[in-house]
Amino acid sequence: MKGSLAIVGLGPGLLDYMTPCAMKAIAKAEYVLGHSTYLKPLIPLLEGKQVISSTMGKEVDRARQAIDLARTHHVAIVSGGDAGVYGMASIVLEVLEHDGADIPVEIVPGITAANAAASRLGSPLSGDFAVISLSDLLTPLEVIEARLDAVFTLGIPVVLYNPKSRGRPHNLALAVSLARKHLKPETPVGIVRNALREDEATRVTTLGEIETIMDKIDMHTAVIIGGAESRIWRRGDDVKGIITPRGYHKKYVY
Amino acid sequence: MKGSLAIVGLGPGLLDYMTPCAMKAIAKAEYVLGHSTYLKPLIPLLEGKQVISSTMGKEVDRARQAIDLARTHHVAIVSGGDAGVYGMASIVLEVLEHDGADIPVEIVPGITAANAAASRLGSPLSGDFAVISLSDLLTPLEVIEARLDAVFTLGIPVVLYNPKSRGRPHNLALAVSLARKHLKPETPVGIVRNALREDEATRVTTLGEIETIMDKIDMHTAVIIGGAESRIWRRGDDVKGIITPRGYHKKYVY
Repeated sequence: MKGSLAIVGLGPGLLDYMTPCAMKAIAKAEYVLGHSTYLKPLIPLLEGKQVISSTMGKEVDRARQAIDLARTHHVAIVSGGDAGVYGMASIVLEVLEHDGADIPVEIVPGITAANAAASRLGSPLSGDFAVISLSDLLTPLEVIEARLDAVFTLGIPVVLYNPKSRGRPHNLALAVSLARKHLKPETPVGIVRNALREDEATRVTTLGEIETIMDKIDMHTAVIIGGAESRIWRRGDDVKGIITPRGYHKKYVY
Repeated sequence: MKGSLAIVGLGPGLLDYMTPCAMKAIAKAEYVLGHSTYLKPLIPLLEGKQVISSTMGKEVDRARQAIDLARTHHVAIVSGGDAGVYGMASIVLEVLEHDGADIPVEIVPGITAANAAASRLGSPLSGDFAVISLSDLLTPLEVIEARLDAVFTLGIPVVLYNPKSRGRPHNLALAVSLARKHLKPETPVGIVRNALREDEATRVTTLGEIETIMDKIDMHTAVIIGGAESRIWRRGDDVKGIITPRGYHKKYVY
């Protein structure tokens, strides 16, 4: 019997932000593998399926197991957000390539944290942007540091993934100091914790004042540092979010 | 009567890749505004609604009209991909801010072209990446040029949006020459035209050989230039796509 492997991006977490294509891939699967956190909202969809839940640090094992099962079964391996951005797509394809098996693979895209978080802040990205992770588990800190130093010279919004964790409390302060080399203190900064989930929390501040909210930032938080054109979106005295203009204001009168 | 405004990202085009949240926002709307291209796949959802279709270059007018209607009606203004990445979110919020009206606004995220295209190429992004548009309609070409020159020094994958159009055939050649300053000729390049739509076309080549497919690149194409770690994904002699490793191979044996 021929199996198949779907590498599925679930989006930010709630079923409301998952695509029908992702749902179909899970419906088709006999085996569903993933990190326990991301499997939890899927429980309504997993009845009758073999569910293999694992934790962080076991990605290579999870990839190997998914491929082994997919020789003869329909398998879905799931990631939060998009599987091709800090998800399982790379490691699964690397292990598959090494294995050499001829298994049909489908990668189902999902909404990655950058866009989920941005939607809660107004329009902080708008156009060109970059995604940089502060996790040095797999990427050396010197590489991350050099990337940050260079990316903040572009003047475009930068989304920081994995900004802080118990093992790495200092990388965020490093990123902030590098941003401050190139961007003004008034540059807007937005943080979104658990974007589009039930306990979502959003804050807007500036690069000059970010220390006031550093304690609110953890591994479930996306940090968006505005670009040279970004500004705070206000309605009266209320801070609503961040707008990075597209450039229409240089050509049109509103 | 109180209105509302939903700024909706539709994803790559087919309803299968649109979120339930996006569908609900459209279902709620009495008026749906958007570019004719992106409204077309929505036709099954638009029965009984007032649909206002416009073309490129009319974004400020469309934003203004959406806001006017949203004072007293439920309105959805739609963008292909994600509304916060080269979509309508920024201009709508800018016009709304200028207008001062107190209209409830919801931004519904969608899958942007970078992630839709990447899913068709395997895992070309994997981690850190940047999105840069080659359209100089609203951004001066000198700014784009400086950004490209800097972004290719990061060694991370870069997704080029709006790589070519009738009015701007040369910006892509410029981007390629800047990439070549910093990246090896073997650097994989993937192009995806109409990602996840019925007439999708995908190709994989290298930075050194990209001229062989330049004529296949148009305004509906996303161009993904790999980073320093990216390589071509093969199964036997078949080129399947592009893998940018996460870094597990430095720590684990597969």
